[in-house]
Amino acid sequence: MPLYNPPIRDMHFVMHEVLKVADEYKTMPRHAEVDVDTINAVLEEGGKFASEVLLPLNISGDEEGCTLDRDTHEVATPKGFKQAFAQYVEGGWPALSCDPAYGGQGLPIVVNQCFFEMLNSANQAWTMYPGLSHGAYEALHAHGTEEQKRLYLPRLTSGEWTGTMCLTEPHCGTDLGLLRTKAEPQADGTYRITGQKIFISAGEHDMAANIVHLVLARLPDAPAGSKGISLFIVPKYRIQPDGTLGERNGVYCGGLEHKMGIHGNATAQIVLDGAVGTLVGQPNKGLQAMFVMMNAARIGVGMQSLGLTEVAYQNALAYAKDRLQSRSLSGPKAKDKPADPIIVHPDVRRMLLTAKAYAEGGRALNLYCAFLIDRELHHPDEKVRKESGELVALLTPIVKAFLTDNGHIATNACMQVFGGHGYVKEWGMEQFVRDNRINMIYEGTNTIQSLDLLGRKVLGNQGATLKKFGKMIAKLVEEEGVNEQMAEFINPVAYLGEQMTKFTTELGFRGFQNAEEVGAAAVDYLRVAGHLVFGYFWARMAQVALREIAAGNTDPFYQGKLQTARFYFARLFPETAALMRSARSGAKVLMDTDAALA
Amino acid sequence: MPLYNPPIRDMHFVMHEVLKVADEYKTMPRHAEVDVDTINAVLEEGGKFASEVLLPLNISGDEEGCTLDRDTHEVATPKGFKQAFAQYVEGGWPALSCDPAYGGQGLPIVVNQCFFEMLNSANQAWTMYPGLSHGAYEALHAHGTEEQKRLYLPRLTSGEWTGTMCLTEPHCGTDLGLLRTKAEPQADGTYRITGQKIFISAGEHDMAANIVHLVLARLPDAPAGSKGISLFIVPKYRIQPDGTLGERNGVYCGGLEHKMGIHGNATAQIVLDGAVGTLVGQPNKGLQAMFVMMNAARIGVGMQSLGLTEVAYQNALAYAKDRLQSRSLSGPKAKDKPADPIIVHPDVRRMLLTAKAYAEGGRALNLYCAFLIDRELHHPDEKVRKESGELVALLTPIVKAFLTDNGHIATNACMQVFGGHGYVKEWGMEQFVRDNRINMIYEGTNTIQSLDLLGRKVLGNQGATLKKFGKMIAKLVEEEGVNEQMAEFINPVAYLGEQMTKFTTELGFRGFQNAEEVGAAAVDYLRVAGHLVFGYFWARMAQVALREIAAGNTDPFYQGKLQTARFYFARLFPETAALMRSARSGAKVLMDTDAALA
Repeated sequence: MPLYNPPIRDMHFVMHEVLKVADEYKTMPRHAEVDVDTINAVLEEGGKFASEVLLPLNISGDEEGCTLDRDTHEVATPKGFKQAFAQYVEGGWPALSCDPAYGGQGLPIVVNQCFFEMLNSANQAWTMYPGLSHGAYEALHAHGTEEQKRLYLPRLTSGEWTGTMCLTEPHCGTDLGLLRTKAEPQADGTYRITGQKIFISAGEHDMAANIVHLVLARLPDAPAGSKGISLFIVPKYRIQPDGTLGERNGVYCGGLEHKMGIHGNATAQIVLDGAVGTLVGQPNKGLQAMFVMMNAARIGVGMQSLGLTEVAYQNALAYAKDRLQSRSLSGPKAKDKPADPIIVHPDVRRMLLTAKAYAEGGRALNLYCAFLIDRELHHPDEKVRKESGELVALLTPIVKAFLTDNGHIATNACMQVFGGHGYVKEWGMEQFVRDNRINMIYEGTNTIQSLDLLGRKVLGNQGATLKKFGKMIAKLVEEEGVNEQMAEFINPVAYLGEQMTKFTTELGFRGFQNAEEVGAAAVDYLRVAGHLVFGYFWARMAQVALREIAAGNTDPFYQGKLQTARFYFARLFPETAALMRSARSGAKVLMDTDAALA
Repeated sequence: MPLYNPPIRDMHFVMHEVLKVADEYKTMPRHAEVDVDTINAVLEEGGKFASEVLLPLNISGDEEGCTLDRDTHEVATPKGFKQAFAQYVEGGWPALSCDPAYGGQGLPIVVNQCFFEMLNSANQAWTMYPGLSHGAYEALHAHGTEEQKRLYLPRLTSGEWTGTMCLTEPHCGTDLGLLRTKAEPQADGTYRITGQKIFISAGEHDMAANIVHLVLARLPDAPAGSKGISLFIVPKYRIQPDGTLGERNGVYCGGLEHKMGIHGNATAQIVLDGAVGTLVGQPNKGLQAMFVMMNAARIGVGMQSLGLTEVAYQNALAYAKDRLQSRSLSGPKAKDKPADPIIVHPDVRRMLLTAKAYAEGGRALNLYCAFLIDRELHHPDEKVRKESGELVALLTPIVKAFLTDNGHIATNACMQVFGGHGYVKEWGMEQFVRDNRINMIYEGTNTIQSLDLLGRKVLGNQGATLKKFGKMIAKLVEEEGVNEQMAEFINPVAYLGEQMTKFTTELGFRGFQNAEEVGAAAVDYLRVAGHLVFGYFWARMAQVALREIAAGNTDPFYQGKLQTARFYFARLFPETAALMRSARSGAKVLMDTDAALA
C-alpha cells in the first residue's frame, strides 16, 4: 500500500506564513472567530481521516470497481466505500465550509481545500462522491428557490444525500448547446424530464439515501443552442413537502463506463424517463447557473491533481531512499551496502524535485484561489469582493489545466522512479497516473480551459484582470528589487511578465484579424501563464524562507524551500522559452494542413 | 475496435524515396536479389496479418490478460493469441530476417522492422512473444556454439519454440552486477541453475512447444559485480541430442505481475530450481553476450512506441473528422450539420500533427537504423560495416528513449482528442497510453539510455561518432544550402548542430571535473539529440517532397509531408531551446537538495 503523510506543515506555511490568511479572516464577519489553532485542529483530524480511512481503500477500490445490478439499477461501490462515507458523515465533514443557515460549519474555503487535497491524495475515486455533492450544494445555494434550499441544502450539508451534475450526452460534451434532453412543464409546476446523460460521476451508488441530480435540459419553447438550456433538480427519490423521501423517480443508471482509472467512482449513464424535476433559476439560463458549479468544480479538479502529485511524490521519495541500485557517479556513498540508494542519482532527483516543485507551487496557487473565494464571499469591502472574484475567474482555468498537466508530468515521473515496479499495480504508482489522467479531460478539457483563459478571461477584457496580477508581481519586485538574494527568484518572473504583456497584446491584434490565432496559441499561452503564476508564488515562498533564515530560524524546512525554488527556476521554468516560440508560430502552420491530415 | 491501416505508403517513401535501400542492397551479396517488389509484397501481406489477425485481439487481450495455473505452472494467454501465433508460424513470419543457414528467409532487417512496426500497432502485448523470441535467436546466433545453434536456431526460426531474456531479479534491475542466481557446473558439462527472476516478458505461455530462456547467472568462482555474470540457455523442456523434447526442466513460472498495460503478455516471475542449462559464450562474459540481445531489443522497444504512435494517430484522425462539436473559431465550416467536426479546431490539429510528426520522424530514424544494421552485417566494405555499427550504437539509445517518450506524448495527445471517450476502454485509446508506458521503462529506463548516450556513446569516444552524424548534416547543408525552399528546414538543424557541438564539448569539460554533471544533463541532452536527428530526417523528407513537387508530381502525399515538416519545425523542434537551458543549469541545483528531499 502506498504511504501518505498529510503535508500539514506545508499547508501551514502557505496559509499562515505566505498568505497570512488568519489576519484577514479577522476582518470578515463570517470568519472573525477563525484562528490558526482552529484551522490546524481541523486539518490534523482531516489528515487522519484521509490517511487512515481512505488510503487503505484506494488500491482495493481500483481493483474492485463499481458494479451495476441491471435489474434494480442500483450500483454497489467497492468494499469499504460505504462505511467510509458513513464515517465521513458522522464526523460532520460534508458541512465543513457550508452555510450555517443550512447546518454548515461555515469554515473558510481555504480549510475545505486543504481538507480536499488530503482526501484526493488518499483516494480520488472516493473523494469524487462528496466532491460532486458539494458542487450541487453550491449551485443550489446560489440559484435555488427558498423552498428548494430548505428541502435540499440541509441534507446535502449533512451528507445524508449526495448530488451530481448531469450535463454530457452521447453526442455532446464540450458543446452543450447540442443537448437534447427535454423538460415538459406539468400543471403542478414541476417538469417531466426525458433524455440520456453519460459520464455522470458519482451518478449512482449505495452510499447515501438519495441522490440529487442537477440536470441540464430544454424546455419545449427553448431557443436552439446554448441559450435554450435550463437547469433542473431531479432527485432519485422524490421529496415530500416535509422533506422525507417519496416515491422512486424516473431517473436510473443504465450502465457504467469501464475506464482507465477512478474505478471506485461510478461513471454512470443516466436515463431520464419522464423523471419529475423542478426548475432551478430562470428558464433558459441553466448554463449560467451550472457555471457556478463548474467553476468550483474546475478548481476542485486542479486540487485532485495536486493531491495525486503530492502522494506520488511522497512514495517516490521513500522508494528512492530505500532502493539500492548502482553507485553514485561521483563514487560510492553507502559504502557499507551493496549499492547506493537511487536518490544519489541526479536524474532521480530531477524527477522527485519536479513532483515536489509542482506540488508545492500548486498548493500555493490553489490556497490563494480558495482565499480569493473567501474574500469574494465575505470580505467587508465590496471592491475587494469584486476584484477577488475577477482574479479567481482568471486563475480558475490555470488551476484546472496547469495543475492537471503538471499532475500528469509528476505522477509519471514518480512512477518512473520505481522502474519496472512502477508499472506493477501493487505499488500503487501506476494508479496515480491513471486516476490523474481524467483530470486533464473532464470539467472542460485542458484545451477548453486555455480558450477560456486566453479568449474570455484575458482578451475578453483587454487584459484588465491580467494586469492586476501583473501589479502583484510589480509589488513584489518593488519590495525585493534591491535584495540581492532574491534576484535569482524575482528576475525570471519579472522578465516573463514583461514578455507576457507584449505577447498578449500581439495575440490580441492577431486574434482580431483571425480568430484561429487565439486557438492556435491558447494551450501554450496557458502553460506560460501557469509558470508566471507559479514563478510568482515560488518567489514569495523563497522570500519567506530567506527572511526566516536571516532571522536565525534553523528549521531545515526553509532551506528545503529555497532548494526547491532554485530547482524550479533552473529546470522547470525555462520551458516558457520554448512555449513562447511555439505559441508565436501562429495558426497557419496548424490550419494549412489539409493534405497532411487527409 | 480501433481501426488500423498499415502505413505502407509511408514505409515506401522512407525506404525507396528517402533511403533508397534497394540500390544499396544490390551491393550486398546476401541481399542482391532483394528488390522493391519483393519488399512491397512482403509488407502488403504482413500488414494484412497485423490488421486482420492481431488487431481484433488487442482489446480482448487487454481485458482478459494471462492466467497462471498454480498447480501446473502453465500460463494461458488470452483467447485467440495461440491461434494467431499458429497462423504466424504457418505464414513463415518468424523466419523473415533469419539466417538461411538455419531455415531463415534472409530478408533485410529493414523489412523485418517495417513488419514489426505493424504488428506493434495492432497488438504490442502479442508482438512481444515473437519479439523476445527474435532477441533470443540473435543472441544465440552471435554467441552460441555450433551445437547450440544446430539445436536451437532452426526451431526459433520456425517459431516452433520461443525465447526469453531472464535478467532482472527482485533486488536488481538496472544494476545487474547485484544479481544472485547461481550456476553450478556439472560433470557432464551442463550447469544447474538456481535463483529467482522477475519481470520476464513472454516468460511462460501456451503458444509454443518449448520456451528457451536465456538466463544470466553467476558461476561459483565468479568475480563480484557485473564482471562475474555468465549467460546460459535454460529450456523449459530439455533437448535431446536429436533435437526432440526431453523431460521438463526445473524452470517454472511462480507468478504473473498485474500491470498497468500489456496485459496480454505474461510478465512472469521465473523460478529456477536446479534447472539444467548450458553456457553461452565465455564464462563471466554473459553481459556482453546479452548486450547483443539488448541492443536489438532497445531498437525493438522504440519500434513498439512507433507502432502505438501510428495507430493512435490514425484513430484520433478518424475521430476528429467524425465527431461534431462546436463551431470553428473562424465561422461554421459544416453548415449543413449541427456542429463542425472537431478537426476544424487549431488545438485538435496540434495534437494530431504532434502524433503524425513523431510517427513519421520515428519511422525514418528507425528504418535508417535497420538499414545501418543491414550494412553492418552484409556490406562488402569492411569500413562501411564498422562505421555503420558505430552509428547504430550511437542512435540506439535515441531510438529507445526518444521514440518511447514521443510515444507517451503522442498516445496521450490522441487520447485527449477523444475527450471523455478517450478515457473509456471501449475506444481503445487509453490502452495505447497504458501499453506504451512500459516502453519508457524496460530494456533500460530512459534515464539509463541517456547515460549510455552521453556518457558512453558521445563522451566515451570524445564525440567521434557524433561528429560523423554531424557530417551527414553538413552534407545536407552543402547540397541544399543555396535552395531557398529548403532554408526553413535546414537552418534550424544546422543551427542546433552547431549548438550541440559546443554544448557537448562544454559537458565533456564539466563532466571531467564532476561526473554528476553528466548525469544531470543526460536526459535533456538525449532529447535535444533526438530532435537533431529527427530534424535531419524531416529535412531530408522535405527535400524529397520538394523535388517531387518541382518535378510536377501532384500526389497530395508530398504536400502533406511538407506541411507536417513545417509543423514539426514550428511547434515541436523549439523545445530544444528550453532543454538546452535546463541541461545547462548544471548538477548543483539537483544535488544540493538534501534539505528539500529530507
